[in-house]
Amino acid sequence: MDATIIGGSGYSGSELLRILSRHPKVETLNVTSRQHEGKDVSMLHQNLLGVYDKKFLSPEGKTLDVDVVFMATPHGEAMNIAPRLVDSGIKVIDLSADYRFRDIATYEKNYQKHSSPELNKKAVYGLPEAYRKDIKKAQLVANPGCYPTSVILGMLPLTASKGKMDLERITVDSMSGTSGAGIKASEFLQHSEVAENLKAYNVGKHRHRPEMESILSEQFKSDVRVSFTPTLAPIVRGIQSNIHVHTDGIDNNLPELYRTFYEKEHFVRITETPNVKSVNGTNYCDMGVWKDMDNTHIIIISVIDNLVKGAAGQAVQNMNIMMGYDETLGLTGIAGHP
Amino acid sequence: MDATIIGGSGYSGSELLRILSRHPKVETLNVTSRQHEGKDVSMLHQNLLGVYDKKFLSPEGKTLDVDVVFMATPHGEAMNIAPRLVDSGIKVIDLSADYRFRDIATYEKNYQKHSSPELNKKAVYGLPEAYRKDIKKAQLVANPGCYPTSVILGMLPLTASKGKMDLERITVDSMSGTSGAGIKASEFLQHSEVAENLKAYNVGKHRHRPEMESILSEQFKSDVRVSFTPTLAPIVRGIQSNIHVHTDGIDNNLPELYRTFYEKEHFVRITETPNVKSVNGTNYCDMGVWKDMDNTHIIIISVIDNLVKGAAGQAVQNMNIMMGYDETLGLTGIAGHP
Amino acid sequence: MDATIIGGSGYSGSELLRILSRHPKVETLNVTSRQHEGKDVSMLHQNLLGVYDKKFLSPEGKTLDVDVVFMATPHGEAMNIAPRLVDSGIKVIDLSADYRFRDIATYEKNYQKHSSPELNKKAVYGLPEAYRKDIKKAQLVANPGCYPTSVILGMLPLTASKGKMDLERITVDSMSGTSGAGIKASEFLQHSEVAENLKAYNVGKHRHRPEMESILSEQFKSDVRVSFTPTLAPIVRGIQSNIHVHTDGIDNNLPELYRTFYEKEHFVRITETPNVKSVNGTNYCDMGVWKDMDNTHIIIISVIDNLVKGAAGQAVQNMNIMMGYDETLGLTGIAGHP
Amino acid sequence: MDATIIGGSGYSGSELLRILSRHPKVETLNVTSRQHEGKDVSMLHQNLLGVYDKKFLSPEGKTLDVDVVFMATPHGEAMNIAPRLVDSGIKVIDLSADYRFRDIATYEKNYQKHSSPELNKKAVYGLPEAYRKDIKKAQLVANPGCYPTSVILGMLPLTASKGKMDLERITVDSMSGTSGAGIKASEFLQHSEVAENLKAYNVGKHRHRPEMESILSEQFKSDVRVSFTPTLAPIVRGIQSNIHVHTDGIDNNLPELYRTFYEKEHFVRITETPNVKSVNGTNYCDMGVWKDMDNTHIIIISVIDNLVKGAAGQAVQNMNIMMGYDETLGLTGIAGHP
Repeated sequence: MDATIIGGSGYSGSELLRILSRHPKVETLNVTSRQHEGKDVSMLHQNLLGVYDKKFLSPEGKTLDVDVVFMATPHGEAMNIAPRLVDSGIKVIDLSADYRFRDIATYEKNYQKHSSPELNKKAVYGLPEAYRKDIKKAQLVANPGCYPTSVILGMLPLTASKGKMDLERITVDSMSGTSGAGIKASEFLQHSEVAENLKAYNVGKHRHRPEMESILSEQFKSDVRVSFTPTLAPIVRGIQSNIHVHTDGIDNNLPELYRTFYEKEHFVRITETPNVKSVNGTNYCDMGVWKDMDNTHIIIISVIDNLVKGAAGQAVQNMNIMMGYDETLGLTGIAGHP
Repeated sequence: MDATIIGGSGYSGSELLRILSRHPKVETLNVTSRQHEGKDVSMLHQNLLGVYDKKFLSPEGKTLDVDVVFMATPHGEAMNIAPRLVDSGIKVIDLSADYRFRDIATYEKNYQKHSSPELNKKAVYGLPEAYRKDIKKAQLVANPGCYPTSVILGMLPLTASKGKMDLERITVDSMSGTSGAGIKASEFLQHSEVAENLKAYNVGKHRHRPEMESILSEQFKSDVRVSFTPTLAPIVRGIQSNIHVHTDGIDNNLPELYRTFYEKEHFVRITETPNVKSVNGTNYCDMGVWKDMDNTHIIIISVIDNLVKGAAGQAVQNMNIMMGYDETLGLTGIAGHP
Repeated sequence: MDATIIGGSGYSGSELLRILSRHPKVETLNVTSRQHEGKDVSMLHQNLLGVYDKKFLSPEGKTLDVDVVFMATPHGEAMNIAPRLVDSGIKVIDLSADYRFRDIATYEKNYQKHSSPELNKKAVYGLPEAYRKDIKKAQLVANPGCYPTSVILGMLPLTASKGKMDLERITVDSMSGTSGAGIKASEFLQHSEVAENLKAYNVGKHRHRPEMESILSEQFKSDVRVSFTPTLAPIVRGIQSNIHVHTDGIDNNLPELYRTFYEKEHFVRITETPNVKSVNGTNYCDMGVWKDMDNTHIIIISVIDNLVKGAAGQAVQNMNIMMGYDETLGLTGIAGHP
Repeated sequence: MDATIIGGSGYSGSELLRILSRHPKVETLNVTSRQHEGKDVSMLHQNLLGVYDKKFLSPEGKTLDVDVVFMATPHGEAMNIAPRLVDSGIKVIDLSADYRFRDIATYEKNYQKHSSPELNKKAVYGLPEAYRKDIKKAQLVANPGCYPTSVILGMLPLTASKGKMDLERITVDSMSGTSGAGIKASEFLQHSEVAENLKAYNVGKHRHRPEMESILSEQFKSDVRVSFTPTLAPIVRGIQSNIHVHTDGIDNNLPELYRTFYEKEHFVRITETPNVKSVNGTNYCDMGVWKDMDNTHIIIISVIDNLVKGAAGQAVQNMNIMMGYDETLGLTGIAGHP
């Protein structure tokens, strides 16, 4: 099969290249970039030297005549390009937020005016652990945000719990590495500013909050509200989400519940010691679960690599499902220790 | 005045040396270490080369014939030594947990059998912003734990708020640097294991939780309960505590409330961008406060340097108060940027 | 084929597990550890959770009845075990220094008394780019040290240069990450001591120096002497070696010479911007070469991942050669960017 | 006395603020910035909150009617402003390269056309350990570059050695933190690119090389040539320079020679374990010296904080000398451990 990455100069595009360049089913792999058109890809992504020795192309013509197109463009661009790709029968996986919201108004409130609301109705939220069946038939998949991936996966097993939960008072503290903010130079992200530092940002107003709330509300069939506080940590890759849920007292053996819920999921591992390094470079989501406060408080700690399970890896997982491949193809890499 | 640090081979002892070696009132400064007795202090603490060129002493005789003794020993040692120091009229500031609990049973449950419960009754909890008057008259001060310092300072202004708060359902996520765990080599703390990683630990069962709960309950005159989750972050110094409080809706202008509450406190700064680097090496506690969830959720983010305001700096602040000095003496150092 | 790793609790053993657990030819993979015998491997190496779910074994009996044994034990242990393995017809790849020296006296001077000098004569130095033919026929391969790998690979192309070089006055400054020092807890390697720091160590007396000198002397057919200064840098993986060679003036187009020399080597890449991150987790050695001082000074900058090309990856490369497999099997992983 | 910092938005300006805001002789301290004029200084330099609560000014009028002006502007700006300041009798300390070169042609070759060559003749190179007497009488001091400071201080004691040295074949490998490259956002300096990485840059062509060569040639009264290779390391502050000098054999006790040479210098410390963290935030230059290769190779390892002894601290040291103050005023801060 042939694939094209539109917008390959950023970190999501880079990670797609890393994974797809060694994917056993991918025959032709193109990557476009308006900014870097004509340049060697390995000048920018030096890890690819000797591995992917092609140049950045412009996003047109034969470049787009492929089976699958990955949109690794900034929010607001995919919605202008995806409609004609989908019309041509190409499967599209969009890593931006453009098609993540069932409710177009929520998208428009948090991002911008949507230019293809009709297509939005057909988009499937690309979290395989929750929407695998729909993804299998989808022609357009909206790849989830990184924070929502960690939080929704952490919450899903609780849909199987019998305890009452205060779903409108969920608290999430997430810590993220710098790669989540992209390749573009910024003073906030300079090494001198980030190293040996911790900085909360967008307290109470991060755009990933409505995304997680809308999907969780759908999954829990109830209004879920999340107070979400992200903090920038001095790591490159990785998100740790600490999820706090109040209950009236819960009797379940939670670790057991979690293990059972995710028993057949290759990319979710239950552990007592979740840590971001053990998922570095991998498509795994590792998580642990604890009770506290006389069983009235549940703590779930969920970790992912924001560029893999939080972006490019999950996108390839979606591709595998859409194409009918084994879901783990190209995604069996594991982290090193250390 | 003369001072002695008992247990100067660890990081709290090292930081006490850094601060006291340049304190304008300190004339003679001794430091003891059983393990390193007779060795040059600057062999271990290389930052002190040319600044403090003495040797580690043994903790006896003339070494202890001073005005103030700082106990920078592991938990369980101060309670065996402090009684006779106090009896000799020496002012004692204990950086361990030995005298932090009003309720001896709570100490014994979380640490060990207490060997000087009588003296414990006279100990004052050394958080100047809450107990300054008592510290002024104290002969034995129990210097607070690092996490409790960040959390209690973050909560104190809410005692002045009129909103109802769910004090039994407070959630705290704290991130800490590695220096908080001390100088002793451990696999958990090796650079190879910590770098590019985030690791939650002691989820729901950290010993600083009963400490913060007991002081907060006293301050709020009501039973305060905290679900506390600490995470090890790849920084050396610094704690960021995210404190979450549910209310029935709160009308106060919280940042204003916080500014007013701490107006006269030199070492607390209110800011919209608290970050651990801005307090690195300093005795400041920086904090910001936000409302969320239609005013029913308060988020306080409080940052300190765990070795300064969280240990040695606060100890010197206590010494200044006990000795009747200007509270900021020796503590005016500021962080660099970057 | 079946393989066993003796000494799997360290970082080299861990990295061998990472690579071999996904190697297409490896059917049975055992790992031994005296210290951790009976424990789940993934308790120690958490990255392997769900990937390698076996336990640490004791190094005896059936465990050793395999095609290839990797010795990832401390220096001094392999020489006691290898002889009987080799006698049983097992191929042995030793990651320690025990069989790296042609001249047993040099080994004994720098390490300890050698217990199997006879077998030492048959050992082949496992640097495929220099000794591939011998490795192919070897039954015992001495896997090179990490620093020597980076330095020897950086120097080899100069054997093809016609310029005169002052081979007795080579200067090497190397920077290394902490994983090179192993998993054992040590104060020197604590995160608090390493982060935001640079520390030279073993200046002029590191044991890798005689190793690189002896191999380089053999390759250059001339006495090569190296002044070698290693520095610990706050990274986990990676070595950068800056190699300085004086000449009487050199006319070669050095980058061209280097490209030609390594044209057919899969794991050496010539680049103008060598950096350790681009080889992280990979078996690549990236290098650049520059002239300076009116062509009388050559600077080669060579970077590797000390645990891969500097240890486990090179060991598997040697296994592939010894077993007649494609040399790159199991070693096609690439670094991420970032 | 009154002082003004021109160009206070960068890291050198920030560090000058940190030091001068607590300098016992400084009464009025202004800071200018064209970009940030009118903004609170502590919005940009958050460490200064509550310490320096003034605003950035424009560089004119009363702002410049002070005793000392520090120029913390990019190269090329000081030479346009300094002449009229000097004419007004103001003492000027320029942290840029504009007045560092005796030989204007070398400046122009490496930087740009010089606009005040006349004034350049009167400038004194502000390395107190070499030019203290001249600094005392100077009205314009050219504050040295960070790399040259570390290298020249490391070499100076050898002027007192009797051994013959190959001064035209000196090799220097330096590692530097990111703060040396300034506050301006750049892709090269993003945390995602720098963390867990080492990157050599400007190999053989860094502009600090002619600076160190010209000063060393003057000090050694002989032509000194240096092959200089800088590497960016993942630390914020700190430079480690490894200096290699060939000799015909040297009999001196070098550590003793170094100790004696620097006996009276407050800011140079001789140690067997130089490391950047021990000088972090301080004006110290720590160094060690070793012999190698049968006494024919000298290795000096010299470490500084690039923003302090390599920039702002040395500038204040120069101010103290120019004003007749104790040279250590405002500069007695020491690093923490850890």
